[in-house]
This record gives sequence, structure tokens and C-alpha cells, in this order.
Amino acid sequence: MSLKNTQVIFANRPHGWVQESDFRIVQTDVPTLQDGEVLVQNIFLSLDPYMRGRMSQAKSYARPMELGDVMVGATVGVVIAAKNPRFSEGDTVLGYFGWQYYGISKGKDLRKITNQQVPSSAYLGVLGVPGTTAWIGLIDIGQPKPGETVVVSAASGAVGSVAGQLAKIRGCRTVGTAGGKTKCDYVVNELGFDACVDYKAGHFVQDLAAATPDGIDVYFENVGGEILEAVLDRLNPFARIPLCGLISQYNATRPYELRNVAALLVNRVKLQGFIVTDRMDLWPQAQNELEELVSSSQLKYRESIVEGLENAPRAFIGLLKGENFGKQLVKLA
Amino acid sequence: MSLKNTQVIFANRPHGWVQESDFRIVQTDVPTLQDGEVLVQNIFLSLDPYMRGRMSQAKSYARPMELGDVMVGATVGVVIAAKNPRFSEGDTVLGYFGWQYYGISKGKDLRKITNQQVPSSAYLGVLGVPGTTAWIGLIDIGQPKPGETVVVSAASGAVGSVAGQLAKIRGCRTVGTAGGKTKCDYVVNELGFDACVDYKAGHFVQDLAAATPDGIDVYFENVGGEILEAVLDRLNPFARIPLCGLISQYNATRPYELRNVAALLVNRVKLQGFIVTDRMDLWPQAQNELEELVSSSQLKYRESIVEGLENAPRAFIGLLKGENFGKQLVKLA
Repeated sequence: MSLKNTQVIFANRPHGWVQESDFRIVQTDVPTLQDGEVLVQNIFLSLDPYMRGRMSQAKSYARPMELGDVMVGATVGVVIAAKNPRFSEGDTVLGYFGWQYYGISKGKDLRKITNQQVPSSAYLGVLGVPGTTAWIGLIDIGQPKPGETVVVSAASGAVGSVAGQLAKIRGCRTVGTAGGKTKCDYVVNELGFDACVDYKAGHFVQDLAAATPDGIDVYFENVGGEILEAVLDRLNPFARIPLCGLISQYNATRPYELRNVAALLVNRVKLQGFIVTDRMDLWPQAQNELEELVSSSQLKYRESIVEGLENAPRAFIGLLKGENFGKQLVKLA
Repeated sequence: MSLKNTQVIFANRPHGWVQESDFRIVQTDVPTLQDGEVLVQNIFLSLDPYMRGRMSQAKSYARPMELGDVMVGATVGVVIAAKNPRFSEGDTVLGYFGWQYYGISKGKDLRKITNQQVPSSAYLGVLGVPGTTAWIGLIDIGQPKPGETVVVSAASGAVGSVAGQLAKIRGCRTVGTAGGKTKCDYVVNELGFDACVDYKAGHFVQDLAAATPDGIDVYFENVGGEILEAVLDRLNPFARIPLCGLISQYNATRPYELRNVAALLVNRVKLQGFIVTDRMDLWPQAQNELEELVSSSQLKYRESIVEGLENAPRAFIGLLKGENFGKQLVKLA
């Protein structure tokens, strides 16, 4: 008798906002395990903004998903059967099985999680791709110096929350941007940022100016659009912009048109687009610092967990709209 | 009897295009030379796009000029009286005396030109700030590799012509952009670029695509606006953009709104605004290569010379409109 799997299939290429009807949930049989393979039951699925890009046919750093594919995504799970000597039943593994309950792998793309000091879900967030992305963007590209002002957009999110805390640890005045008072309070009171500007409050330009009296030296960019434009007007000479994401643009049918490109010239700004896999050489250094900071509770993180794969599409749409609060996960088992 | 000077004064802060009425020509007496000073008769005045920025009150890398100031600018001249032991009558010097026939200096901002192998005017162009700007932007920021495609805007100009030739010498496919067939022919036939796209021909996007079949790895940016937007759509992963100038924007009363910022993210582009004085450490290396290439006729340059200070305002306005052809100079004596 075969094991039953549930998968979320990419069913329709969205134009503008993603809809639940862009996904289809199917039941399949888990194939029989072959020699060299490992069967993993996924415990957590990570939902991340980059997935919106994979649903689009626009040129990007990864090939687009094809209709009918299982939705991609990072997962943490437990090995429940192993025909591969490198793995044993009960191993906790980080994988990239996507939106499904079970996955089979030859093991090359699996990483065993042996650290017992932190919950395994952290390897999808603060210790995973989001946290490492924050580290590489802020430290390698941003190069923050003590006393400088660092602005981090989407500051309560999985990437921004780490970037801002790392800047604060390095002695920077650290200012977040986030949507709504609850998130802004969390960014200041829990994460320890010096200030957080609520872009939904209606006077962002003035509020940003008040929060950055000495201008802006590093802007960790996750969102684009009006927030980017307002930040550009406050840059100091030799400012750095790690360009990590543009979530405000991912569902836009008409891109935001940026007025003040000249600020990049007159301030001699370095702007660098990046994705975390561009700098695998920095991964060990980033991991070491992040694990140490999490283990010693110097680096805080928050998770937003929905239960059950059938709720993943709605949670993903909420993530794109900024409705999540902290790292968005789906609990699968 | 005192020596009579003629000066061009900054008389009115322009809004939009510069007008001749924004300048005032005045006669003054050259002050009596004091101990430690040098009196220089200027032979050539350099006209450069950055001067437009100094006429504006918008935030930039140098303080704005005040109304009543002598217009700023680099000059090459001859010492005609010296009360400073470091200089002798007859010395040729590079200075920053601005738009006037005579200038007095304590000598610290003067550089003696001793190289007899090239005309002294070259020190305002190919061997001066424009050429060094091209070197630093292309080599240090652009880091072109053999076989890559390098696009240079304003390719027939003082900076672009050098940047493109340096790229060609390094084994790159080198494509210029310029306005009009005459300039484009010069860029290809005289300067040796592989292609030049005429932005006035009316089908720039298609022509650029045809000239860059393998995409664009380095974009040496002098102009901004629609040309930048078209280039962004053809960037390859890990492209570099030395951002040197935005001449299309300097007289715009409403800035061009850039649609495709996302191209910087998905291609993980490094964009770096710079001015040449940010990297004085690279100046000797740049000078050595440029002098060697000019002396051996491997690096070509073209000058556009108007006679007489009274024609400087009109020549400067022409420069901003792209009417010059090569490095714009004013011959003063």
C-alpha cells in the first residue's frame, strides 16, 4: 500500500496579484523508494517573496516555474525511510521539496540539522536563506560603520529583522520601515531598532526625515517603489544600497517609475543587486555569527505559522500583501 | 598700469536650459602680484557638463556657485610672472582658474606640464579629468573582461571616447551611443568601436538590441533617461554600471522616471556613482596608461575649439545640447 502525498501545483500564471485559483491541490502516491534515495516527511514549509518571481515569465535569476510544477520552496523535515548510507531514519534535514507533505531526494540537496539548541524551523528563517541573505547584504555590500545610519525596509520581516539587528550590533543608528503600528512597535521594542517608520501612516517622507536626522548611509532594500524614492532623497555621500528585493513591485502590473536616479550619482552611491547564492563563499562566516547570536538570544526572530498545506496559498498571498508578521511558515506535520 | 582681465560671471541661476543671459562678461583689473603668488595667462579653458550642476542649488557633490562668482573651470596656461620660487616665467601649468583670461594662484593648485610629446590642451581632455574619469570608471568599477560587451553612452565625447577605446584595448565588444550619423561614424571609423547606436535615429531600442546580441556586461553611463532604461533591459547577470553623469537630466525641469529598476535586482547589477576625485589613489596609474596610449597614438581624441572667452557661454550651451563634437575647449590666447 503506497503512501499518499498532497501537493500544491502551480496552475495558472498570475497577472498582477496572485489568486488562490492560481494553485491546485492534488493527491498523489509517493513513489517507491529506490537505492540511494531518502524519503522525507516535511514538517515546515517556508513561504518567501521570491516565489512570486518564479510564477512570472519575466527574466529573472532563476528559470520560471512551468504550469503543472509543484510549487517550489525550502522545507525542514524528518527522514522516514533511507536507502542512502549518509542518512538514517529520524534525521532532521533541510531540503527544497516545495509545497508537499513528502519528498524524495538522492541526498545531495539535503543538509542535516544537528544543532539541538534552536528549533529546526529557524533554519528556514533566521539561520536559513533569509538570515544569510540579510548578513551578506548588510555586511558584505552595506559595510556599516559604527555611528552610521542604516535604514532597513520590511523591517519586521524574515530578512529585514536580521539585517537591522546586525546593524544595531555593529553600533549603527538603525531605522526600520514597516506597515502599521503593531509591526513598528515590535521593530523598536522587541528587535531594538532606534526607530521604525510606518509607511501606512500617510506622511512617510516627513517621518523618514525625522527618524534620520543625519541622513542615510546604508539602505537595505527589500521593497522598492515610493520607499526607495524617499530614501534616495536622504542619502549621504558614499551611501551603499544592498538591493535584496522589491516586494512592492512583484504584483504591480505597471512598475513604479523612479524619479531621482540622480541621487545615486551626486552621492556616489554603490547599489548592488544580489541573491544569497551569489556568495556561497560567505555562507560559513554568516552561519557562524547567526548561530552564535541566536543561541545567545542576542538575535530575535518571530514566526508566523499557518497549519496545513491547504492554507499555504492564502498565507502566500498574505505574505505578498504584508499581512504576515515575521517569518512565514506552513506547518505540515 | 595694471593688466586688464576679462571674466565670465555667473549672473542668473537657470531653471531648465541654460541661456546666454545667465552669464555676464566683465572687465576687471588684474591685482598686483603678492609674494608667493603666480600670474598665469590662460591659453585654454575646458567646458564640461558638471558645470551645469554647479549652477544649480540642488544637492550635489560640490557646493553650488553663488551668483557673481567667476564661472569655474579647468585651464591650461603659461606663467607670465612669478613671485614663487617653484615657478618660472614660461612654465605651462594646469590650473582651475575658471572662465577668465588671467588668474593668480599661490601655486598649490597648479600642476606643471612638462610632457612635450602631446599638446598641452590634452591635459584638459584625454589626459585630464575627462580621460582619468573614463579610466577610473571603466577599469576600477566596470572591470571589463575580454569578450564582454561594453556599452558607452556619449561615446564621441571627452569621457566616453576614452572609456570605449580602453574597453576595446581590453578585448571587449565595444558599442557606443551618440547623437547623429556623423558622430556615430567617427566613433566606429576613427575610434574603433565595434558599433555605435544613433539615439536620434528613432528606433533606439531595436538598434541597441541589434548591436548587443550577447547582452550588455558593462554600461559606462554618461547620459541617463531613455538610454539608461533601454540598456537596463539588455543587461546580463552581474553587469556593472559606472555612473559617471546624467547629461540628459541636467536641464530637465522634470526628471526622467525610470521604469525598470527591477533589472538591477534580477541581474544582480553593481551600479556605482563616482567622480574622479573620489579615487585620487588611482590617478597615477590612470595617467601612466593614458600618457603611454596617447604618445603611441593608440588612444585618439578630438577637440572642438571655439575662440575667445565671449563665445564660451554659447559653446557651453551647445555642449549641454550635444552640439559639440569631441572635447569642448575655449581658446583664450
